[in-house]
Amino acid sequence: MFDDRVPATDFATVTALTETGPGAFDADVHPLWTIAGKPNGGYLLAMLGRAASGLGPHRHVIAASAHYLHSPDPGPVRITAEVLRAGRSASQVHARLMQDGRPCVDALLTVANLDPDAKPYWDAGLPAADAPPPGQCVRLAGTSPSGAPAPPIMDEVRLVMDPASLGFAVGRPSGRGELRGWLALAQDAPFDPVSLLFAVDAFPPATFDIEMAGWVPTLELSVYVRALPARGPVQVLQRAQLVDAQRVDEVCFVWDRTGRLVAQATQLAGIRLG
Amino acid sequence: MFDDRVPATDFATVTALTETGPGAFDADVHPLWTIAGKPNGGYLLAMLGRAASGLGPHRHVIAASAHYLHSPDPGPVRITAEVLRAGRSASQVHARLMQDGRPCVDALLTVANLDPDAKPYWDAGLPAADAPPPGQCVRLAGTSPSGAPAPPIMDEVRLVMDPASLGFAVGRPSGRGELRGWLALAQDAPFDPVSLLFAVDAFPPATFDIEMAGWVPTLELSVYVRALPARGPVQVLQRAQLVDAQRVDEVCFVWDRTGRLVAQATQLAGIRLG
Repeated sequence: MFDDRVPATDFATVTALTETGPGAFDADVHPLWTIAGKPNGGYLLAMLGRAASGLGPHRHVIAASAHYLHSPDPGPVRITAEVLRAGRSASQVHARLMQDGRPCVDALLTVANLDPDAKPYWDAGLPAADAPPPGQCVRLAGTSPSGAPAPPIMDEVRLVMDPASLGFAVGRPSGRGELRGWLALAQDAPFDPVSLLFAVDAFPPATFDIEMAGWVPTLELSVYVRALPARGPVQVLQRAQLVDAQRVDEVCFVWDRTGRLVAQATQLAGIRLG
Repeated sequence: MFDDRVPATDFATVTALTETGPGAFDADVHPLWTIAGKPNGGYLLAMLGRAASGLGPHRHVIAASAHYLHSPDPGPVRITAEVLRAGRSASQVHARLMQDGRPCVDALLTVANLDPDAKPYWDAGLPAADAPPPGQCVRLAGTSPSGAPAPPIMDEVRLVMDPASLGFAVGRPSGRGELRGWLALAQDAPFDPVSLLFAVDAFPPATFDIEMAGWVPTLELSVYVRALPARGPVQVLQRAQLVDAQRVDEVCFVWDRTGRLVAQATQLAGIRLG
């Protein structure tokens, strides 16, 4: 359910690649998948994940580490992907997104085949997946609860947030540095390892729940995809850990509809606090 | 204090690089910095960090993401480091460690200048740095409490563990998946961003505190260096989060002697459990 804001795009289209040679692709950064004109970092990493997972016998990105060099503008970009090692159980790939010959995002990716029948064996120290059901959450789209316009990308997905996470929108962040909620793609397209690379960076910065501080540019983003998600929306927890020297690290946990942890991430970002 | 086991090497020597051309270095993987004949992953990443931080005007690695392709043998290796972008406040570097022409470790690194006067601004969700003082911990070196020989690398550093973390050595892991303790370098050499890249991977796998499962090879390791450490030993917490599909993710926190968080890391490793 997308309320009254119907997405103009879908994830498969805005991350589509056109192969132009071995390991070389053309793509387009969509102007609607942006925040203040800058494309979302997870969206760009998902493009690199699509390039990396189409190269060999392995289909699922299980680990991706991106360093962000320069934010591309919406429009044409080129992607290169080089297999560093093609092993039996996994391959490693170096992928790069460029615009006008300038490197924008470099990533290393490990690609393997996730077993749909694998079961979790042990866990500890994981936070609980305890956002209220999507119907009790508030969609971020169009006009945010503060009256300010939400970024265009919020109309292109369905991102609903736990009301307890929404203090920032009315100038009363909780101070916990935690945002919880749910994410669905247009047409309820099922999540896969490529779109999970976007899911871990889809939420607003968890620092919104501490103090509003303008743009929080991602410097590094590392993602592990742990399992193939069940069909349906995913639950997301974005949590800030430490603000020091005008940088913040945030962790992200993504569970599928059944409550299974399917992806986790950590990122380091710049922030004008302190 | 190194008890009766005196290190035969020091960190600066075993990570020394000889420049052979622009961004090209020769190095030697030391046979004593190994576990069952395989070099420690953080040790190899520290070599890449040394290469990356010597290239330009920025001196401190603040983010490093490594993917492990092939474990090199002790002996000669070659390292290449390419500056992807040289910015005003930070540079990004792609570095690679090779042996006999075969890529072994690829890493992306962001290098900046850490301000020695920066102060932490906010934190939440960080575990406490609550290992007992080093004098109440047990050194892992020589013969472990189980009677089995400790890996050679344990004689080359001073790694002392909280007795509460040592259940694994006598066949009684706590089940919490947590190891706590302290780390010092030979001759009490001060830690810096390069040696912190080693510190985040110096401890045994936290899965030892769940169930012994043989070799736990690191697939990916991401490290953030948050501050320049005060002189002295560092406190380390290594914690497992989820074992699924024969892979485990572990997080690591490193505090300096004053209790300031100076480095944090996450890794994905293979494991024969489940």
